Amino acid sequence: MKSQIKVFAPATVANVACGFDILGFAVDYPGDEVILKPMKKPGVSIVKITGDKGKLSMIPEKNTASVSVLSFLKHINSNQGIEIELIKKMPLGSGLGSSAASAVAGVFAVNELLGRPLQKEELLPFALEGERLACGTAHADNAAPSLIGGMILIRSYNPLDIIQIPTPKDLFCTIIHPQIEIRTEDARKMLKKQIPLKDATTQLGNIAGLITGLIKEDFNLIQRSMEDVIAEPVRSILIPGFYDVKTAALDTGALGCSISGSGPSIFAFSTSKKIAEEVGNAMQSVLSNLEINSEIFVSKINQTGPVIIED
Amino acid sequence: MKSQIKVFAPATVANVACGFDILGFAVDYPGDEVILKPMKKPGVSIVKITGDKGKLSMIPEKNTASVSVLSFLKHINSNQGIEIELIKKMPLGSGLGSSAASAVAGVFAVNELLGRPLQKEELLPFALEGERLACGTAHADNAAPSLIGGMILIRSYNPLDIIQIPTPKDLFCTIIHPQIEIRTEDARKMLKKQIPLKDATTQLGNIAGLITGLIKEDFNLIQRSMEDVIAEPVRSILIPGFYDVKTAALDTGALGCSISGSGPSIFAFSTSKKIAEEVGNAMQSVLSNLEINSEIFVSKINQTGPVIIED
Repeated sequence: MKSQIKVFAPATVANVACGFDILGFAVDYPGDEVILKPMKKPGVSIVKITGDKGKLSMIPEKNTASVSVLSFLKHINSNQGIEIELIKKMPLGSGLGSSAASAVAGVFAVNELLGRPLQKEELLPFALEGERLACGTAHADNAAPSLIGGMILIRSYNPLDIIQIPTPKDLFCTIIHPQIEIRTEDARKMLKKQIPLKDATTQLGNIAGLITGLIKEDFNLIQRSMEDVIAEPVRSILIPGFYDVKTAALDTGALGCSISGSGPSIFAFSTSKKIAEEVGNAMQSVLSNLEINSEIFVSKINQTGPVIIED
Repeated sequence: MKSQIKVFAPATVANVACGFDILGFAVDYPGDEVILKPMKKPGVSIVKITGDKGKLSMIPEKNTASVSVLSFLKHINSNQGIEIELIKKMPLGSGLGSSAASAVAGVFAVNELLGRPLQKEELLPFALEGERLACGTAHADNAAPSLIGGMILIRSYNPLDIIQIPTPKDLFCTIIHPQIEIRTEDARKMLKKQIPLKDATTQLGNIAGLITGLIKEDFNLIQRSMEDVIAEPVRSILIPGFYDVKTAALDTGALGCSISGSGPSIFAFSTSKKIAEEVGNAMQSVLSNLEINSEIFVSKINQTGPVIIED
């Protein structure tokens, strides 16, 4: 067995406009890193966390990375001792799947460390245990794309049915993270439990259009389809200046723009890196005028999921 | 100008399980035929209707075929006189887009007769005028596939955005028409105006899966995705024995089975003509036991839309 393993797992954008609760994709950066070391003494412990500003628990049962590792070890009936160092390289509570990235990094790392007893796709249930801890429910729209890479459709939760949707190679994503915090649970509570049938129909048309556009590499169709009438109108209330940011993105040439996950991060799709960067700058200007600090991330759709970055 | 033209336009299956209100496809048969003759005297008249058991109006403003022709002639500022003979070769009020097939046949025929002043795709608004007359609203999920052929996504009504979705060449459709009548308006009134958000999410996952399965020719994914939690649970109440018919279809090897349009016809997808025929027989047996007469139609997905069958 290796004496240690270091793994990176990517951040993710869930919901993807009209893909409320069923679609998510991974980006090349940001993401989280973990360093795992095998220990003689059984049990999982967190020895160090950096980049979390002291917000995350070091109790193994209360941290998403260690919970996913514990869940995995239990499944394979292993009492291997594991020491975890968690290096947060992305903002918490940002709507970028921070808890999912840590959970995926943890479970991917322990599986590699122990000689890969399971296939990558089989690791999802353990990452979801981390998500259950962080969000109260085991939503897969961050964990699945972080683990598998690419654009992921969660067709069904019961049974779990995960499908990778091809995406155009020239599709670039701009993410802007306004430095305000939104709790996923609060954003979820804002949603109405009943919605008008006509809104459901609009969303059905748009998701069908978006999926078709992605597979057929039809940028114009992607553009026409990126409208969310279910979550965005409600959740945008929690993000100051959201519609001005969105307008700036679209005016600068973005194909579409919506909330990442439950926010406050906002993402946009563009057809080149140059446009994606210009879109980021335009979005940041709007937030600056509102005296809100922000970070910009520009990336392709990540196609690999977690990777070993250093043994 | 030709002295007459005869056109066939195909029947259609709208809704397509989870594709409620946004998806429809054409079948090779049944369908409707029209014979159009140019007349010296301006105005549109219906000279003969067969196959309707006397149910359709011969008043030009009250028949879908002539309404679409009138609407077209008005658009191109023509006062060409037209005589229409309508040959209904499919059941009325069956959920197979009977009014759309007549409207499409009419407008396609008049456009051909007048030397094709408009492209085929441009004829949809005139066919929709026929649908407005028949259904009260200009739903496009029958008229668009009847006109264009194939599997058609209506991504949006405002503006109208029609996209053809590729389908596997080995996809066969069984339609069974129980000889009971349901009014589209009644079936529509049964739907609730508000639906649970979780049902919308389920439907979103399934339509995304169905579209992906159709484009990628993934029969297993098509099978997993063909579930409708919005319309079928409500509208099936109007169709005696619906769930027994569906169970018989699935047990015989159909990929999926749901209501065609607003019913009472029921459709199923299969991966071969042989299975599709067996599925039809199994469905018919169930209805026979309930003493309901029925007709079976087995067909591929029609890829052509209306055709000139005789000049």
